[in-house]
Amino acid sequence: MKVLVINAGSSSLKYQLYNMLDESVLAKGLVERIGMDSSILTHKPTGKEEITEVSEILEHTTAIRKVLEKLTDKEHGVLDSVSEIQAVGHRVVHGGETFKGSALVTSEVKSEIRRLFDLAPLHNPPAIMGINAAEKNMPGVPQVVTFDTAFHQTMEEKVYLYPIPRVLYKKHHVRRYGAHGTSHQYVSKAAAAFLDRPIEDLKIITCHIGNGASLTAIKGGVSVDTSMGLTPLEGLMMGTRSGDLDPTVVTFVMNKEDLSISEVNSMLNKHSGLLAISGISSDMRDITDGLEAGDPNSTLAFEMYEYRLRKYIGSYAAAMNGVDVIVFTAGVGENSAIVRQRVCDNLSYLGVQIDPELNKIRSGDARRISSPNSKVEVLIIPTNEELVIARDTNRIVLEAEQANNK
Amino acid sequence: MKVLVINAGSSSLKYQLYNMLDESVLAKGLVERIGMDSSILTHKPTGKEEITEVSEILEHTTAIRKVLEKLTDKEHGVLDSVSEIQAVGHRVVHGGETFKGSALVTSEVKSEIRRLFDLAPLHNPPAIMGINAAEKNMPGVPQVVTFDTAFHQTMEEKVYLYPIPRVLYKKHHVRRYGAHGTSHQYVSKAAAAFLDRPIEDLKIITCHIGNGASLTAIKGGVSVDTSMGLTPLEGLMMGTRSGDLDPTVVTFVMNKEDLSISEVNSMLNKHSGLLAISGISSDMRDITDGLEAGDPNSTLAFEMYEYRLRKYIGSYAAAMNGVDVIVFTAGVGENSAIVRQRVCDNLSYLGVQIDPELNKIRSGDARRISSPNSKVEVLIIPTNEELVIARDTNRIVLEAEQANNK
Repeated sequence: MKVLVINAGSSSLKYQLYNMLDESVLAKGLVERIGMDSSILTHKPTGKEEITEVSEILEHTTAIRKVLEKLTDKEHGVLDSVSEIQAVGHRVVHGGETFKGSALVTSEVKSEIRRLFDLAPLHNPPAIMGINAAEKNMPGVPQVVTFDTAFHQTMEEKVYLYPIPRVLYKKHHVRRYGAHGTSHQYVSKAAAAFLDRPIEDLKIITCHIGNGASLTAIKGGVSVDTSMGLTPLEGLMMGTRSGDLDPTVVTFVMNKEDLSISEVNSMLNKHSGLLAISGISSDMRDITDGLEAGDPNSTLAFEMYEYRLRKYIGSYAAAMNGVDVIVFTAGVGENSAIVRQRVCDNLSYLGVQIDPELNKIRSGDARRISSPNSKVEVLIIPTNEELVIARDTNRIVLEAEQANNK
Repeated sequence: MKVLVINAGSSSLKYQLYNMLDESVLAKGLVERIGMDSSILTHKPTGKEEITEVSEILEHTTAIRKVLEKLTDKEHGVLDSVSEIQAVGHRVVHGGETFKGSALVTSEVKSEIRRLFDLAPLHNPPAIMGINAAEKNMPGVPQVVTFDTAFHQTMEEKVYLYPIPRVLYKKHHVRRYGAHGTSHQYVSKAAAAFLDRPIEDLKIITCHIGNGASLTAIKGGVSVDTSMGLTPLEGLMMGTRSGDLDPTVVTFVMNKEDLSISEVNSMLNKHSGLLAISGISSDMRDITDGLEAGDPNSTLAFEMYEYRLRKYIGSYAAAMNGVDVIVFTAGVGENSAIVRQRVCDNLSYLGVQIDPELNKIRSGDARRISSPNSKVEVLIIPTNEELVIARDTNRIVLEAEQANNK
């Protein structure tokens, strides 16, 4: 089966085309600046040269049509015909409490995703645009949605509820949902496979740290706690997001600076984190350069980031009464040796010991960086959310076909 | 020296009279409902019967006058004359970044406390009322202020700054200040003394858990991190306070329920925590009764409380790269065997092991509850903030007298 994976944002659309026979990527690419005057399509067929095309793409249906043209283009394509695409998988940020796993798209599923706009006003609407655009371009082709929140639906009530009036949960669904679930699930399974140990026996802390960042405590293969909450603002210090704060900071700043709700949210989501403290950049590579050059603001930003990350690892060790495996993944987790080194240096009380040489090696492979006598396995597992979406899509479409044939 | 310790709230005033020769309490008491039509004065002279008097007390100067009358009363008093009181010590909640220790009251000190009203609008104004009232009733008697925040002024910048635009720190002093500093300092020193070990060598986590609750990580005798932040809302789940939340919850709820800043603050400070989840009480004794009776809401409230407390202990172990001593203090910490038991049962990964029998014993003494082979010492140390205030007052007044005599 050939599966097209789509990740639609409000003005962007990422895609990957998989051949599920061998899980190989046939092509991938990105449409940027949708709705603006000069949209950019970047298309990379596997084994061929990447191409970039600038044109007017006003909405998502046109974006997908252009992608399909590229995928079937004589020169840059990888398919003879669009009909070879047998299923489409979509990334959806928020599945609320409804979706505990991926699902075949039906009109009910779409209604439910729309109902959840409230909880993910920036993220769920473009997902619906992506689904509708795919339906228009590929009528009759089955579509599947994979939710960032689904993996965390195993959290217990004591973990997902906030200590606030319970009517807010009943009426407005205020609770912890988490995010990056597809990634946390993928790297935890891959970690168990790498170690050749049953995941049921393991206490794993997965650190998905990219521009957005979240930690998950995974016990026996299920998410028992995660650092993102009602929204992806809670938890770790991130590129431009504050993470945890005294809740009073929100109202104190609104009051002092006469900010509206949307202004304070914008401040905390887009103008905080590494960017606010360093004054330079939201990118850990720039912060690390600043740290190494002795820039005091970058040094402070780095130290805050490391300290807050380390405390979360400590709190999840307490949540599970121990930890067997720590996994680093995503941009910072996979590439920043110094973040991993500094965090692990201060976790020796857990018996964590990493090998500085192994930690420095750059590679795209899953690998161990802990030393043989470390009491906790420390691994780097490159994440692959698209592959999980492709696999789920493949599985769900096959199951649906089998059910129809019965 | 005889020292009167005063803890003034907006409508209440607590007092204790110390004889500093032997640090004995001569009398203590409380004025409640100041400013209301029937104020209540409860006075307890040591070794004599407690008395209660209802009268109209419209403000703090009258309250202190009534207290002084009781202290010098022929029947219920413990002093021949008010002039025996040689110094007054006041508890002040917020010392900002100015006060790193207790201070003799001068007009500059009072101005500075007033300047800090902004950061503690509910707590610092009554402290000034208490100081003024004491000055009017005891002109010329030296007064000292002790700050709840002072002990935490040793925190590093990376710990006290929030990951938000730095102008908010520069302009509005938005940072972590913490609270209960007097208590955390007292019990950590008492723990080191109990263990007969130099505090410089110890990593201590002090759990001050009463109706308000905070944790402090104390390394080498100084506060390196604490769970309360800009205000006493941050951190642990408390009797009526939420503690940590996704910051977005604040604005989400304001928006959904059309709440003002003061309404949402009131909700998070007065109508959240144990009270909101149990639907019954903010008092851990009631929650524990509910838990034991199998009430599901009390059980959930208890579990959330324990889980959040345990995770903080774990995060502070990571903050200090280990922990030697865990101290429980204040109402819940000193009296709730089940809270201590459940928390410690899930910290075996740190080598924590408590003796269930020792843990059950009720006593007002400092004591060890960990078993001999526990890797972490677990202690109960009854807190005594009034004694610290009395000691600081005594010391500072003596130092000032010596300086004047030079």
